[in-house]
Amino acid sequence: MSDTMQKLRALEKRIYAYSYAMGVIEVDESTVAPSGGSEGRGEALEVLSAAQYDLLTGSEMASLLTTAASEQLDEQAAAEVRELKRTYDQFTKIPAEEYAAGARMMNDCRNAWHKAKAANDFSIYAPWLEQMVDNRRRWADYFVPGQDAMATWLDQNQKGLTVEETDRFFASLRESIVPLLHRIQTEGTPPRTDFLKRNWPLDKQKELSAYVMKVMGIDPTHCVLGETEHPFTLELYNDDVRITTHYYEQDMISNLFSVIHEGGHALYELHVDSALRYTAVTGGSSIGLHESQSRLFENYVGRSREFLSFLWPKLLELFPENLAGVTCEEFYRAVNRVEPSLIRTEADELTYSLHVMVRYELEKQLLNGSLSVSELPAAWNRLYKEYLGVDVPDDAQGVLQDVHWSQGSFGYFPGYALGTAYAAQMVHEMKKEMDFAACCAEGNLKPILDRQTEYLWKYGQLYTPDVLIRKACGGVFDPSYFVRYLEEKYTDIYQL
Amino acid sequence: MSDTMQKLRALEKRIYAYSYAMGVIEVDESTVAPSGGSEGRGEALEVLSAAQYDLLTGSEMASLLTTAASEQLDEQAAAEVRELKRTYDQFTKIPAEEYAAGARMMNDCRNAWHKAKAANDFSIYAPWLEQMVDNRRRWADYFVPGQDAMATWLDQNQKGLTVEETDRFFASLRESIVPLLHRIQTEGTPPRTDFLKRNWPLDKQKELSAYVMKVMGIDPTHCVLGETEHPFTLELYNDDVRITTHYYEQDMISNLFSVIHEGGHALYELHVDSALRYTAVTGGSSIGLHESQSRLFENYVGRSREFLSFLWPKLLELFPENLAGVTCEEFYRAVNRVEPSLIRTEADELTYSLHVMVRYELEKQLLNGSLSVSELPAAWNRLYKEYLGVDVPDDAQGVLQDVHWSQGSFGYFPGYALGTAYAAQMVHEMKKEMDFAACCAEGNLKPILDRQTEYLWKYGQLYTPDVLIRKACGGVFDPSYFVRYLEEKYTDIYQL
Repeated sequence: MSDTMQKLRALEKRIYAYSYAMGVIEVDESTVAPSGGSEGRGEALEVLSAAQYDLLTGSEMASLLTTAASEQLDEQAAAEVRELKRTYDQFTKIPAEEYAAGARMMNDCRNAWHKAKAANDFSIYAPWLEQMVDNRRRWADYFVPGQDAMATWLDQNQKGLTVEETDRFFASLRESIVPLLHRIQTEGTPPRTDFLKRNWPLDKQKELSAYVMKVMGIDPTHCVLGETEHPFTLELYNDDVRITTHYYEQDMISNLFSVIHEGGHALYELHVDSALRYTAVTGGSSIGLHESQSRLFENYVGRSREFLSFLWPKLLELFPENLAGVTCEEFYRAVNRVEPSLIRTEADELTYSLHVMVRYELEKQLLNGSLSVSELPAAWNRLYKEYLGVDVPDDAQGVLQDVHWSQGSFGYFPGYALGTAYAAQMVHEMKKEMDFAACCAEGNLKPILDRQTEYLWKYGQLYTPDVLIRKACGGVFDPSYFVRYLEEKYTDIYQL
Repeated sequence: MSDTMQKLRALEKRIYAYSYAMGVIEVDESTVAPSGGSEGRGEALEVLSAAQYDLLTGSEMASLLTTAASEQLDEQAAAEVRELKRTYDQFTKIPAEEYAAGARMMNDCRNAWHKAKAANDFSIYAPWLEQMVDNRRRWADYFVPGQDAMATWLDQNQKGLTVEETDRFFASLRESIVPLLHRIQTEGTPPRTDFLKRNWPLDKQKELSAYVMKVMGIDPTHCVLGETEHPFTLELYNDDVRITTHYYEQDMISNLFSVIHEGGHALYELHVDSALRYTAVTGGSSIGLHESQSRLFENYVGRSREFLSFLWPKLLELFPENLAGVTCEEFYRAVNRVEPSLIRTEADELTYSLHVMVRYELEKQLLNGSLSVSELPAAWNRLYKEYLGVDVPDDAQGVLQDVHWSQGSFGYFPGYALGTAYAAQMVHEMKKEMDFAACCAEGNLKPILDRQTEYLWKYGQLYTPDVLIRKACGGVFDPSYFVRYLEEKYTDIYQL
């Protein structure tokens, strides 16, 4: 390895240390920290964030990147330089003091969101969200002056993704989902769902979480499950990944699929090649690719008839009273019921994309200034009525439901819908190589893990998202696989 | 405030941020982190520790301290400069790369200790402990070349404490404890203890923890309880303090007094004046003073007849079956039973100091090179036989029981015994000012909290330990208060 690359790797490891620290602080905040410690956390994060910023944008980085540009680099080294250069170019466009203040504002904004959601009071959150929107507009303008902010944030989240492509993708989904939803609601045979709202003992739900993680092949010495308001996955590095869930006494399904969803994210991170450890190209790629993995496990594996038939004996063992007189087929249909609803994370596969579209539309308006934060709750409620046909009773179940905006994640939501669609294409490819249904039916997910490791996971960010999408999808992305999957699945379930 | 002090405070806040991050990482490691993530944690801690070292010892610090030395400073500013100067003088004696490697070695050593204790296998720990002893000897020599390492580490842990004073203190304790113990064992009426080893439901034990924290006046928005192998207290800052406990199904007493003990530490930290926040003089003072507060609550309050009579109805409510046919007086005598035993943290008040003496003696020998790490387990077992009359069945219940050495805490244990003795004198003083027994009997600890805040807690490290001991003890430290307390208490309990 060249002297330059040795120095660059040492610098990358220092940068990693700050990400690690801030990651642990975030996990701690979301899971166990006392509520009254936000001031000191904010002060600490501001310092740590500024120190990392200095490393990412300092003179040492600048000179190493310049030297490296003139050297013969192997594939990984070239990728590290590419990613560091991208970050350097972006961040040097943001004044250092604004970068540090931004990190602190995000901490305060997230705290305000937590309080606002708990109190069902948007006004607690509104002034912070206003600062956040201003920040996102301003930073987008630093990145690409004069460009539409949404275009910039889409590209930030997934290199190469455009507003036009995203608009087209959602338009094509709407074209197929809305008529299918209409047919289901008018002609479909609705599944039995009476047993879903029974009392599901929390200790048994926790046992189920551990069991499912084991079936998924998640190594407990490298990944643990915590509890949070809003489930998430956070990788400290590829040997230490945290996932969280939320337990509800009246709802077993929520935790079950949260664990499988976050477990999918975790598997991706846990299988990134260790050769990339502590460098700028470790960790999963774009939001869309990451969500494709969580959705692959949540929907294509987890909600499949085959996997649920595998899980059935365990479910009967854990919840004999709740499931008395229920058949596995009834359970399968119930967890796949289509029901326009209020909460994105609880939405079925069919209407899920409509939830995402609401957020995408509102973000576009917030970012281009045509919608103010004070108008946001009403606009949210209007779009939910228009897209999903539901009335939003309060902000906690409406505009306050997602943590994302409070963390500065704009241009992020489309990745959820895109990822789901990438996964359909990946599963289509996988079925050429293995008996996917049999793997699910036997609870033998190893061939799926191996295939995903081989085609996607191990690469981390060695390649850009567009390249990785082609590798994992077996070609250029085509949303028609997803549309076909939805039509086949729901025509069967609703006996259309 | 002078320009120098403004800059110094900004630098102190940066130093704080690293302590905060490393503190959260430590809490995370001890409570929830998966076992397989130590490599990445070690890498991160090495970077963070080195960065903090640079701030503590860098040219900016040097020049600010020099400038500040010539300025008129108020009391707090002068104390900050005093403490920063002390740290600067110490750390600049350790080569920077050795400081960073030391932080990493400590992380590895602590991990090795965890594994060794779980596996009851000293050989896992031994090579790391050897490195640690070498490190402590070498660092002591950097601090005060040529001085006995134990003398240096005692002074590090409690400014002004000497080997001679500590030797004398322990000698005087032995003089009184050993005959008293002998009288108890030969002439005493032993308490009934049959009910202690019953099955104590864990969920009820957890309820008891929350109840006790509430009675102690610990604000749950600023202090939360976690679970660890070895209970500890860690302050991130005075608005966010973490305590931990360990639950045993067969032993309710262990958790009860762990929570009160750690709660005492937490109260101290939570009541440090916020004016000291983010500076070098925030946080509790020496180990001895800190332990005086945990022991004050654990023993002088928690194990008093009066406090236990207050707690009794709650205990009966939580554990009606376990305590059926037991009187409060029997419970009081049982939790105060004297029984030479294996585990320091479970020891009674009388024999506790003997456990500390074992460690102090062994540390002296390790540090002066007259005992090797390989000889340590046998030496441990010999001293337990000699001081406490017990046979150590295995290393997990012997030399592996404490985390301290694995964290580099040498010269630390004497503080436990000294603190307990300081507390006796503080309580003696307190009784002149309030009806201490009535406060305990009514579960009204506020007057005690107020008194401790006024005489000790609020000061943080504004004054050196010797000054604070005089303030809180109402005069020069005198171990005879402790000796008299033990004699009175156990003469009564054992009806001598």
